[in-house]
Amino acid sequence: MKAIIKITLKQGVLDPQGKAIETALARRGFNGIEEVRQGKLIEIMLNEKDEAKAKAQLVDMCEKLLANMVIENYEIELAMTDNQAGQA
Amino acid sequence: MKAIIKITLKQGVLDPQGKAIETALARRGFNGIEEVRQGKLIEIMLNEKDEAKAKAQLVDMCEKLLANMVIENYEIELAMTDNQAGQA
Repeated sequence: MKAIIKITLKQGVLDPQGKAIETALARRGFNGIEEVRQGKLIEIMLNEKDEAKAKAQLVDMCEKLLANMVIENYEIELAMTDNQAGQA
Repeated sequence: MKAIIKITLKQGVLDPQGKAIETALARRGFNGIEEVRQGKLIEIMLNEKDEAKAKAQLVDMCEKLLANMVIENYEIELAMTDNQAGQA
């Protein structure tokens, strides 16, 4: 099973990386950008078959290691055995 | 309009950050993890109303600045004026 975890900064937390991207885009002539925020994307391949168990394990991973709960939010998406995602 | 851009390493490209997360999770007692890959998540608030124009602009941003097309893939998701996403 494949899990996609999105980790984003909470609202109100300063995001210098996002600001840097915003400035760089504006300098390259991209207009109409109101805000840019940068987060992390973590893809985990698990061999757990049970969806509920996998979800519980992932929540545990996020809260204990992957996300800093003081300043970050996390979101978990489960994709069943679909190996290919994220191709542009 | 809010856009979510997922930037991931292409298959075959070495991902030391992902490997580090994998090792850290295993050391914390999380079993059954086959692979971890880390990517970037970029959220952009645009004031473009037209979906097609926004999409074209975002593709341009990805190819010119946000993604390194040699080693990375990108994926663009558009979310219409829905301001709140990514809350855990």
